Amino acid sequence: MRYELYYWPTIQGRGEFVRLALEEAGCGYVDVARETGRGAGVPRLMRFLAGRESGELPFAPPFLKAGRQVMAQTANILLYLGDRHGLAPREESGRLWTHQLQLTIADLVDEVHDTHHPIASSLYYEDQKREALRRAGDFLDNRLTKYLDYFERVLARNPRGRGWLVGARLTYADLSLFQVLTGLDYAFPRTMRRRSRRYRRLRALSRAVEDRSRISAYLKSERRLPFSEEGIFRHYPELEGAQSS
Amino acid sequence: MRYELYYWPTIQGRGEFVRLALEEAGCGYVDVARETGRGAGVPRLMRFLAGRESGELPFAPPFLKAGRQVMAQTANILLYLGDRHGLAPREESGRLWTHQLQLTIADLVDEVHDTHHPIASSLYYEDQKREALRRAGDFLDNRLTKYLDYFERVLARNPRGRGWLVGARLTYADLSLFQVLTGLDYAFPRTMRRRSRRYRRLRALSRAVEDRSRISAYLKSERRLPFSEEGIFRHYPELEGAQSS
Repeated sequence: MRYELYYWPTIQGRGEFVRLALEEAGCGYVDVARETGRGAGVPRLMRFLAGRESGELPFAPPFLKAGRQVMAQTANILLYLGDRHGLAPREESGRLWTHQLQLTIADLVDEVHDTHHPIASSLYYEDQKREALRRAGDFLDNRLTKYLDYFERVLARNPRGRGWLVGARLTYADLSLFQVLTGLDYAFPRTMRRRSRRYRRLRALSRAVEDRSRISAYLKSERRLPFSEEGIFRHYPELEGAQSS
Repeated sequence: MRYELYYWPTIQGRGEFVRLALEEAGCGYVDVARETGRGAGVPRLMRFLAGRESGELPFAPPFLKAGRQVMAQTANILLYLGDRHGLAPREESGRLWTHQLQLTIADLVDEVHDTHHPIASSLYYEDQKREALRRAGDFLDNRLTKYLDYFERVLARNPRGRGWLVGARLTYADLSLFQVLTGLDYAFPRTMRRRSRRYRRLRALSRAVEDRSRISAYLKSERRLPFSEEGIFRHYPELEGAQSS
């Protein structure tokens, strides 16, 4: 079966967490909105959002079509792919723990998004820049450390510790954490550089994901979109200057 | 087995979504931070967050202890309880669809929270009121309708339609949607009243949940905390006045 991934065609965004899982698992998939021709591209994606295609109604991209099933919400898609393709433990407690970490990563991603869009997603950054400076300042002063300390600690506490978050093998949560760390390096390079010694385990995880043969090939391919100021992780130097410490 | 729920003792907050599921399922549970005496209260909760208790490390409350297992993230806890206590379909596609709806409800809850705290959770509302007025205006003008229209439509499209979101039986997502609708009525009464005809199916779902015998008993009990200006759903009349329509 070939999966169909539906996500905005020009940004990594939340779709990237799904792409990384599909790539690591070696799944065949079509990135539908990036294809051209009949029945592809953004119009096809919009048909699902409008409820004009069969299957359960998604609220927003990303969503994944697997045969006749259509599922949305990044963490939910990863739950499905994790079970199907060995990207999560088989037993229940490990599955839930992986999912819990993924949902915490999703919360961090939301907070990163809101550093440049604290008022409304529908407005331009320039129209909420004053508020963005305040929110980004708090994020970099307080929230970022809280999240990264947490994940560093999870790595340190893993009893099977081989550098992955859960047990002795890579899970979809590791792939997502890699994506977040790479995005944070792009958006807040000075801050992340300054704190790199504090997060040795996170750094090692990031390198280990990058070195996976399929991920490495993917990152070099045209399928990997670049970071940009249209996505979740944006490099606006003035936001990084808003922190007090 | 008696569950142990860990959540802040004075607010409904995100813990309430877990309480509703435990109550509907008739589970025995202790609301630990609301208990007094040795090994209870907020200090016990804090010991988990500090990593001084066994089990996987939670990032934030709510978390649930089930035997030796400790799990966090509201939607993740509900995934577990849904399987264990018949609050979700048994087959995979129904389980994922229920979870997808729950995650969309969680996104809405985050956006409601940010109407009064758009800059920083660590600051008082009064210290971010100007920004809150702007964010609440956008929420009420754009986002709220998008979410409620979506859930109304999901109800209308349910092929087994008996008033529940998924299939022919109540799931944890119905309980959570009831909580959100009740909270929205509390926070934005004028807006919700004005739109009540548009959301007939949502209203019917809300009444149907309220009429469940265990939920009805729970809502009348002292276990149900009141809404207040300390929680997620806050009634600040000036925020409701910020919308343009």
